[in-house]
Amino acid sequence: MTTRTAPPAPRPVGRPRDPALDVAILDAALQLLCEGGLDACALDEVARRAGVGKATIYRRWRSKDDLVRDAFGSTSPDLVPEDGGSLTVDARALLHALAGALASPRARAWRRTVPALGPEAPLQPALPDGPVGDWPAAARAVVARAEGRGDVPAGGFPALALEAAGAVLVARWLTGEDPAAVADALVAELLAAVVEPHLPR
Amino acid sequence: MTTRTAPPAPRPVGRPRDPALDVAILDAALQLLCEGGLDACALDEVARRAGVGKATIYRRWRSKDDLVRDAFGSTSPDLVPEDGGSLTVDARALLHALAGALASPRARAWRRTVPALGPEAPLQPALPDGPVGDWPAAARAVVARAEGRGDVPAGGFPALALEAAGAVLVARWLTGEDPAAVADALVAELLAAVVEPHLPR
Repeated sequence: MTTRTAPPAPRPVGRPRDPALDVAILDAALQLLCEGGLDACALDEVARRAGVGKATIYRRWRSKDDLVRDAFGSTSPDLVPEDGGSLTVDARALLHALAGALASPRARAWRRTVPALGPEAPLQPALPDGPVGDWPAAARAVVARAEGRGDVPAGGFPALALEAAGAVLVARWLTGEDPAAVADALVAELLAAVVEPHLPR
Repeated sequence: MTTRTAPPAPRPVGRPRDPALDVAILDAALQLLCEGGLDACALDEVARRAGVGKATIYRRWRSKDDLVRDAFGSTSPDLVPEDGGSLTVDARALLHALAGALASPRARAWRRTVPALGPEAPLQPALPDGPVGDWPAAARAVVARAEGRGDVPAGGFPALALEAAGAVLVARWLTGEDPAAVADALVAELLAAVVEPHLPR
């Protein structure tokens, strides 16, 4: 067995990369996905909006798929609110967090891009599930916290009921409703119809 | 004011249109939408699968948008089941009808096509809302029938609870789950978590 010294790291050529350009390019890509899905996110147009040349994009991302993946980001903002002391308070805050997340440019870009891809697309597994995919786990986390606090007995509140409340926001958003615009009234109705029947009186 | 005789109707040229070809073309278009959304539904490929020439398509539809609109059909199959005599029976049948509708080629084609379009697309208002859009009204119809039968007092059962049960199927379907594959167990859980708490004991 021979020992080799590691080759020297390649020296960077030219000026160091400007992180502000990365942000401008990713923002432009997300904006275009939001406006028109994958078709609208052409690299020429990303370059134009970001005020850079296409070569600047290709120095950072090998392909459009790579850029799109990074534009979505690898993780979603956490939906689970800070501990509000009761399941009703937490469930209300969680539903508002979902309504806000669905109204975000990232979620609107997701709606125009991911359902159209289908499971066979190479890009599909690289994209995050967005608030729609994160929602069931967030509902379970809030119910588990309430069980821990003792607001509800263990197993006494079905997390599926809270999942169902949020699923109404998701389904209406899918057909074009803006959940943030109607959230106050709808969240109150959902809490009464789906969550409160299970709370100890 | 002069009276004119109507011009004679144009005489059909060549052989009469074969309705079986219409069906083959519409089926091929829906199949392609289902497999790859609007991009996959290229007229060359529709013609190839239907075993016709492109001119045969253009004699029937002015544009790809017109063909896509007709491939979706103008109305969805009605989700509301026959009267089963009780709200529990009807709600179960309704949830199974939704799971079945979401698993259909038409709904899968819808998922790959409509959310990606955005409100500005000329095609968008021409496409049906599919089972996702039809669901809230179907839930209200089943609850109204139960009120009429007297299973529940008027206003005593929130239709939003039944809407929420189905919205779980919609949200999971949106992230790729096949609702028909899990429907038996999930529908039973949804009835227990969301519907039964409101039924008179």
